Amino acid sequence: MTAYADLSAHFGRIAALSNAIGILQWDNDAIMPKGAAGTRAESMALLHVMSHDMVTDIRLGDWIAGAEADSALGDWERANVREIRRIWTVATALPSDLVEASSKAVSACEMRWRQARADADFAGLLPHLSEVLRLQREIGQAKGERLGLSPYDALLNDYEPGGRSARIDALFDDLAGFLPGLTEDALAAQARRPAPLEPDGPFAVESQKQLGLKMMAVLGYDFDRGRLDISTHPFCGGADNDVRITTRYDEADFARSMMGVLHETGHAIYEQGRPQAWLNQPVSRARGMSLHESQSLLVEMQACRSREFIGFAAPHMQAAFNGTGPAWEANNLWRRGTRVAPGFIRVDADEVTYPAHIILRYRLEKALIADQMTLAELPGLWNDGMKELLGIVPPNDRLGCLQDVHWPGGGWGYFPTYTLGAMTAAQLFDAACKAVPDILPAIGRGDFTPLVGWLGTHIHSQGSRYETDELLTRATGRPLDASVFKAHLRRRYASEA
Amino acid sequence: MTAYADLSAHFGRIAALSNAIGILQWDNDAIMPKGAAGTRAESMALLHVMSHDMVTDIRLGDWIAGAEADSALGDWERANVREIRRIWTVATALPSDLVEASSKAVSACEMRWRQARADADFAGLLPHLSEVLRLQREIGQAKGERLGLSPYDALLNDYEPGGRSARIDALFDDLAGFLPGLTEDALAAQARRPAPLEPDGPFAVESQKQLGLKMMAVLGYDFDRGRLDISTHPFCGGADNDVRITTRYDEADFARSMMGVLHETGHAIYEQGRPQAWLNQPVSRARGMSLHESQSLLVEMQACRSREFIGFAAPHMQAAFNGTGPAWEANNLWRRGTRVAPGFIRVDADEVTYPAHIILRYRLEKALIADQMTLAELPGLWNDGMKELLGIVPPNDRLGCLQDVHWPGGGWGYFPTYTLGAMTAAQLFDAACKAVPDILPAIGRGDFTPLVGWLGTHIHSQGSRYETDELLTRATGRPLDASVFKAHLRRRYASEA
Repeated sequence: MTAYADLSAHFGRIAALSNAIGILQWDNDAIMPKGAAGTRAESMALLHVMSHDMVTDIRLGDWIAGAEADSALGDWERANVREIRRIWTVATALPSDLVEASSKAVSACEMRWRQARADADFAGLLPHLSEVLRLQREIGQAKGERLGLSPYDALLNDYEPGGRSARIDALFDDLAGFLPGLTEDALAAQARRPAPLEPDGPFAVESQKQLGLKMMAVLGYDFDRGRLDISTHPFCGGADNDVRITTRYDEADFARSMMGVLHETGHAIYEQGRPQAWLNQPVSRARGMSLHESQSLLVEMQACRSREFIGFAAPHMQAAFNGTGPAWEANNLWRRGTRVAPGFIRVDADEVTYPAHIILRYRLEKALIADQMTLAELPGLWNDGMKELLGIVPPNDRLGCLQDVHWPGGGWGYFPTYTLGAMTAAQLFDAACKAVPDILPAIGRGDFTPLVGWLGTHIHSQGSRYETDELLTRATGRPLDASVFKAHLRRRYASEA
Repeated sequence: MTAYADLSAHFGRIAALSNAIGILQWDNDAIMPKGAAGTRAESMALLHVMSHDMVTDIRLGDWIAGAEADSALGDWERANVREIRRIWTVATALPSDLVEASSKAVSACEMRWRQARADADFAGLLPHLSEVLRLQREIGQAKGERLGLSPYDALLNDYEPGGRSARIDALFDDLAGFLPGLTEDALAAQARRPAPLEPDGPFAVESQKQLGLKMMAVLGYDFDRGRLDISTHPFCGGADNDVRITTRYDEADFARSMMGVLHETGHAIYEQGRPQAWLNQPVSRARGMSLHESQSLLVEMQACRSREFIGFAAPHMQAAFNGTGPAWEANNLWRRGTRVAPGFIRVDADEVTYPAHIILRYRLEKALIADQMTLAELPGLWNDGMKELLGIVPPNDRLGCLQDVHWPGGGWGYFPTYTLGAMTAAQLFDAACKAVPDILPAIGRGDFTPLVGWLGTHIHSQGSRYETDELLTRATGRPLDASVFKAHLRRRYASEA
């Protein structure tokens, strides 16, 4: 066997293990009885150790070098070797006692966080969060030394391969300058329109589920290779050829679940569209978290909060809940779905104010990792940032710096991918609509095939064949910038009557 | 660390892996989308190989010998070492290419069998089944040489540790002599009673589910450590502290699902009641398949087809489906639940005729493994056996030798455990009721705590601490014989008015 053949067989086994872990994690988050938590944690820890052992296998260094020297490899194979080296470099950068210490600190901190959030008790979380942060700094340091990156960029690199904070700073500073004025204009434009009417509930869970399934089908989700279930925190997970999404149902507000299902379906059709020929190899993986989020936001925000989509979907919503009257008219549903209202909670934020939540978190976590501020200063600096970016100050830390699981959960460097994803979504959707002018009219007819076809060709089927910048340049003619996103927000929120 | 400490840590990891496999298998059988089958098969194969590698780890021989020589171990530890030696001996008896060949032959044969059964096409299955049988003989041979057993007894030993065909022959011959007369008497007694009335359906699936959940609660099933779901073939599976059962719902017959749920709940409360202090060690495992089946049949047949239970359950059934009239009276429901009718299909058989189906299969598989008959003779000998044991001949092989998955699926040596389980159930229930006379009256009040308490003490909490014979002797005063089972059948079916 050639070095490449050894390598790809080995990573095929890693994929088989990773698929097992994916389904067990889905089960854990969606349907596991709670008394199984301890037993499941032991199984997950064992499988993660096995996976780590396989990714750091002593033979890999030689195989990778051998494959890199193999001139007979094609484009895809070479890209696969590049991805394998990336994975191996990061995995071998950390001593295993650091991995274990971090994993334990995160488990303890997440557990404590649930209570601290409920009690708005930042002081109670502080010792646990300090330990998580200390270990994240160490991890960033160790990875950074291996990769020649700052600790923060090294953490970011796990979620956004090739991402650099210098570039994100520029993009986010630009947005931070633009957003307050836009928000003001959006609120003013909104004030000139009639206030949206609320459709009368309650909305039966089963009807919401059927509506969600219908919308998934419209988007081309393959039910033969996935499922829709319920969980407290909606997500897209599972395994290759088994891409499962979850939602939660609020009987007082059907639109929340419907838009959530559309969002997760965006993630899912990316996963389902990854290149089948390379499915068990790293080169088939989704390109990174900003690209992933771009696919969910492209579906949810760009496509499905358009007037075209709401025009198509309104009769389905009416039929699902026997809705009649002006609250069920497409115009009203569109106004309701594009309301702007600055608030404290990120996950409840609208498209216009969402980036401010992300910019705040990004700036704070970068300063914390760089030791430029202390955790004790976090609540105060959080509130200052909210005042500056959104003009409001949370009355307590439950509605402030305790609201998200990311930091207690060890997900440092993740936050910026949300807004990078929103910008990428705007740039991709704009390019798609220019290349295929029927995309929006077709959506108005409930036909997503032109859009999903374009995404399939330019994004989904490309896996990790190219680096993010090259992938985006090939699809849209240039790397990421903020201009299309800004123009989209201005057009939708500050210009439309 | 002592050898024993090494050994128990190692088997703790094997349990963590086995729990992962258990949940993935449950998912596979209950909820997996069908397009995921290929991907899942790869994950399962990898985890099974990893588990096999751990069970045949080169260090185990020394650790086991060291632990056996350790005079400081207590009873449970010594029993644990005995179970570990049993597992290790069997696992190391087979060359891995034989394991792999058998696994592949079974996969191919099971797939072919689904079609062959649908088409009643035994000839189409024959080449695949011959290959499975050939490999089962080889496996039986290899294990038998290691264990000093005949090939059939070596296969049986996987499901029923310590089980021997010489003893089963005696038990089954006794039963085979007794059953035809009993069946005749039961049919005569039944003819003297009014024919049972059919409750009017259809019975809504959701109401059936709620009734099933209520009955599980009555039995003391712990919903914090398990679930109830739907699958084509009901089963009890999952993992330690996560014991999941499934059922299927027939809108024309609610009793079928309800009795199925009770049956699987019997399996589940055995698993949930295994000794927590040893839960990740082999000594905590259920004692064997006949004991396992005894727990499901004790609940379903001994307890829940009693007049006491039906008296308690009848009002719940009426309430679940708004049933009124004579069909819903306890007497009628009891007559309906204890009808005897010889038929072709094992899984549809009543308590009286079920053993004949098992005796037939047991005799045939024993002869096939011993090369005393050929597979080509199977359909004819099957039909001869049906004629002899049940007095009826199936019109085709779909209703005959193609009906069960066990042989195509590589489960040779499994069948006798069903009827050994029925006999064990009768003997245990009789001993329990003698020791705690309130057991049946309490069941009549919907209180299973006296029964489940006795089973917990004498069976569930004992895990694999004792060999089967000793466990049964400690619980009932003697090893298994057929007398209590025969007396039970005669009393319920040939004496009651």
